[in-house]
Amino acid sequence: MSGEAAFIESLRALAHHPAARSLDDDAAVLEVGAETLVLTHDMLVEGVHYLPAQSRADVAWKLVATNLSDLAAKGAEPLGVLLGYMFGEGEEDFLSGLAEVLDHYGVPLLGGDTVSGGPPQALGLTAIGRATHCPVPSRSGARPGDTLWVTGALGQAMLGFEALRDGTAGDTGAYVRPMARLAEGQALAPLVSAMMDVSDGLLLDAWRMAEASAVSLAIDGAGVPVAVAEPRRLDALRWGDDYELLFTLPDGVEPPVAATRIGRAEPRGFVPLFLDGAPIANRAGLGWEH
Amino acid sequence: MSGEAAFIESLRALAHHPAARSLDDDAAVLEVGAETLVLTHDMLVEGVHYLPAQSRADVAWKLVATNLSDLAAKGAEPLGVLLGYMFGEGEEDFLSGLAEVLDHYGVPLLGGDTVSGGPPQALGLTAIGRATHCPVPSRSGARPGDTLWVTGALGQAMLGFEALRDGTAGDTGAYVRPMARLAEGQALAPLVSAMMDVSDGLLLDAWRMAEASAVSLAIDGAGVPVAVAEPRRLDALRWGDDYELLFTLPDGVEPPVAATRIGRAEPRGFVPLFLDGAPIANRAGLGWEH
Repeated sequence: MSGEAAFIESLRALAHHPAARSLDDDAAVLEVGAETLVLTHDMLVEGVHYLPAQSRADVAWKLVATNLSDLAAKGAEPLGVLLGYMFGEGEEDFLSGLAEVLDHYGVPLLGGDTVSGGPPQALGLTAIGRATHCPVPSRSGARPGDTLWVTGALGQAMLGFEALRDGTAGDTGAYVRPMARLAEGQALAPLVSAMMDVSDGLLLDAWRMAEASAVSLAIDGAGVPVAVAEPRRLDALRWGDDYELLFTLPDGVEPPVAATRIGRAEPRGFVPLFLDGAPIANRAGLGWEH
Repeated sequence: MSGEAAFIESLRALAHHPAARSLDDDAAVLEVGAETLVLTHDMLVEGVHYLPAQSRADVAWKLVATNLSDLAAKGAEPLGVLLGYMFGEGEEDFLSGLAEVLDHYGVPLLGGDTVSGGPPQALGLTAIGRATHCPVPSRSGARPGDTLWVTGALGQAMLGFEALRDGTAGDTGAYVRPMARLAEGQALAPLVSAMMDVSDGLLLDAWRMAEASAVSLAIDGAGVPVAVAEPRRLDALRWGDDYELLFTLPDGVEPPVAATRIGRAEPRGFVPLFLDGAPIANRAGLGWEH
């Protein structure tokens, strides 16, 4: 285990509160009186999560949208966000992108902090939501016999990243302005046995869901909707940043939103993941580890 | 107005939600069903808010305690914190300090994020609390005739900073491990007309309270309890980081906690602040502007 992985494990151990489910993966669930809150905090760092030359309007959008995607995976309705902002480049662009994304999702900026320091610029965002269904969906609820589904088509963010990196005329939208599936998450929350967003790649995130649920997930790779040409299908399954919802349903239950059935949950076999019948023995290379 | 000040003003304008009261000063107040939440987010940056050589255990303590102090000023009971952690130096020290401060205040770590990047290291913390009294105290409620009070003695953090900076044998505790006045804040919340924590210096924070409340505050400088020798009294009134509570009470109401009466609120005069009868015409130099 690397030093960083050990640190994260130690933080998890510190987070002994039953509500503590976050730290790099799920959002935290907190019961307050009769309300159930869902809380998430993500940081973006210049040069790590975005390029120094990238539009700060897009960075603001992504900062908010990726946190809202974490709420979507919990079926939560966003109540507001807190911003941690380090002064850097492109303040006006950042403000315009922030205004756009908050307006798009109808989410208020509640407060936060501004600091100097850097480069690199570091940004933080906390999103607070209210659960619309309890128990709140988690990644650990998949059961043998459940069907496995995904919203949307994968690989659009990959194409967007490549267009941005290579300066081609391709559509960068899916990468620079990801969408949080809030309506879908709320519609699915009462039905799913497990749910998460696909932030680090379908295969890696499915691996994590299988591990958390103590099942094996068998994925029909050819059946996964992708937005890329066939030779790049596997790339699309390994690429993150699509922020689609991955979920399981009890057998026979149909999703109330547009989604594609891509596999099923089975009793835990000798590996957590099977792709077109082939066991995936190692999570290395399945997606973006961070 | 500097570019940074203009940015903060723009953020405030964006934060058009009635709950939005934060952004560098107060915590945000958010009503969720029958509950009233208090939310605060602060960032600390290496080289700006702490020295690269400073103990990361102390940095972890300060990161949590300063956010809890914001909750204290609202009379809120902490429910949990979310951590934004950038890998840097002293991970084990950070963990031990974090465990200590969470244990001291009985506050759970709910989740968060870990990232690479830097130096400089940037850290963020979000604290979530539940209001114990509504309306939640704010800095804007002082009325002419109210009495002005402060908890504790000021200047201890200044002495601690100087001992740390100069490497003397002086007690650094008040600077490196500030205490959040949570119990006092909860006891005071039902009684105060205005309350805030003294994070940037008594005079500057009193100026802010006077401005927010549209009153003038007349402070008896000699009556302010200080932890320093007399020649340095004025320094202690300008120095931040003490995290004591500054509050106003209706005339005749006595505080239920240890505190010292240091002045009174008057109808708004030609300046917001009077120190021993002398008008303070300019906030420059009153404390730590950031």
